[in-house]
Amino acid sequence: MRISLIGAGKLATQLGIALSEKGHQIVQVWSRTSKSAAILASKFMCPYTTEISSLISETDIYIIAISDTAIESVLAQRLWGNAMVVHTAGSTPMSILAPYCGNYGVFYPFQTFTLEQKVNFDLIPVCIEANTPQNLEILNQLARSISQNIKSFDSNQRQQIHLAAVFVCNFVNHFYTIGEELLKENGIDFEILKPLILETASKVVSQSPELTQTGPASRKDTVVMNKHLAMLANHPDLKELYSLISKRIIQTHK
Amino acid sequence: MRISLIGAGKLATQLGIALSEKGHQIVQVWSRTSKSAAILASKFMCPYTTEISSLISETDIYIIAISDTAIESVLAQRLWGNAMVVHTAGSTPMSILAPYCGNYGVFYPFQTFTLEQKVNFDLIPVCIEANTPQNLEILNQLARSISQNIKSFDSNQRQQIHLAAVFVCNFVNHFYTIGEELLKENGIDFEILKPLILETASKVVSQSPELTQTGPASRKDTVVMNKHLAMLANHPDLKELYSLISKRIIQTHK
Repeated sequence: MRISLIGAGKLATQLGIALSEKGHQIVQVWSRTSKSAAILASKFMCPYTTEISSLISETDIYIIAISDTAIESVLAQRLWGNAMVVHTAGSTPMSILAPYCGNYGVFYPFQTFTLEQKVNFDLIPVCIEANTPQNLEILNQLARSISQNIKSFDSNQRQQIHLAAVFVCNFVNHFYTIGEELLKENGIDFEILKPLILETASKVVSQSPELTQTGPASRKDTVVMNKHLAMLANHPDLKELYSLISKRIIQTHK
Repeated sequence: MRISLIGAGKLATQLGIALSEKGHQIVQVWSRTSKSAAILASKFMCPYTTEISSLISETDIYIIAISDTAIESVLAQRLWGNAMVVHTAGSTPMSILAPYCGNYGVFYPFQTFTLEQKVNFDLIPVCIEANTPQNLEILNQLARSISQNIKSFDSNQRQQIHLAAVFVCNFVNHFYTIGEELLKENGIDFEILKPLILETASKVVSQSPELTQTGPASRKDTVVMNKHLAMLANHPDLKELYSLISKRIIQTHK
């Protein structure tokens, strides 16, 4: 398929690379800044633009991969006619596209992306939704070309999945950052936490996390919990988090 | 070495198995209940007891692998003389052993353990501490027999590492549980979160988590954050957590 990428961030970059490698043609890249548009376009040796109104029509699908808040203003800057337009946002309903497009949907690769680290899409769930069964089939084929794991969800379900992702990915990553901070303050290398982080994650593959909870709160070990709270005296925010989460673990496992 | 295991829980089980496989001899198992003592002792075909006072003296090292709060009462129930005694607790200082033992230390394998899932100790950091250089060398040799990753830390450092572990392991696992809960309420299978959980963890191997933070808070996307808070209306505790952590992510990445 001929694909126009609207966006040049982490998702647009990784998705563009994956689609291009599977034989799709990236025909144009748009970004707010010409610098980032040029960087991404150079990967596909295709033209780029910073004007939504200059997007070429010779494309089978426009993929909007920008922040949720910018989607509507991009949509309003062009007449899309019957071109197929999808966005890639977890928490924005498909209906945002309805006033602007005749054929539309959502193409949501459910993973965390960085600019640098290349991603193997093969096992990444791609959540798709479309305004007609025919368009759903088009997105299904596009998704199948990069992943074996295609899921059809409506906008409400996708929003729930995105919320869960904030807890298991964004908040989890911040807790890794907290771990790094606490060790750094005591001159200890973050390295020591890595085997633990990997084992904790890999346990969920075979067992429900509810069944494998460990640590002082799961044992209701108030002596250790109070020691930890005292150690966090200089971090009132972490102390509050420690108390709230420990309380919730105790309630879940009582 | 001839080893007596004091405790029959997750750590005692996995550590006993690893030591036994490397040629050490588990000579006795103690547990509060004869049932759990018998189950673990049967793995090593060794005797067991529920009386600390009946522990045999023909042992090179007593490994105490029980909850922090129980350590002192166990120590007080026997005269240990010059026998080598170690505990395995992250947040209990080595000095707890001093009034009771002549040769002592800490042997702290830094990992999360379950009863069922066998653990490869090879890369697990083993944090050791001892009351004399000679005893440290004994623990170093014992640790080297099961792991390539030996670290010497004092009690204060070990406590800091344990606190960091609560954030990156115990709290993270609870966040996996929250993700499972939120999806279950909407009839969505937890399965879909697994690739994301694994990728989020594996990113820390090559990059500092501070540099790879993603999600609405890291973009200061208040529209999505407010949507998520509204979705959590029936979960006041999760709503509070969501706000606190998002605030902290925003501060960290401003």
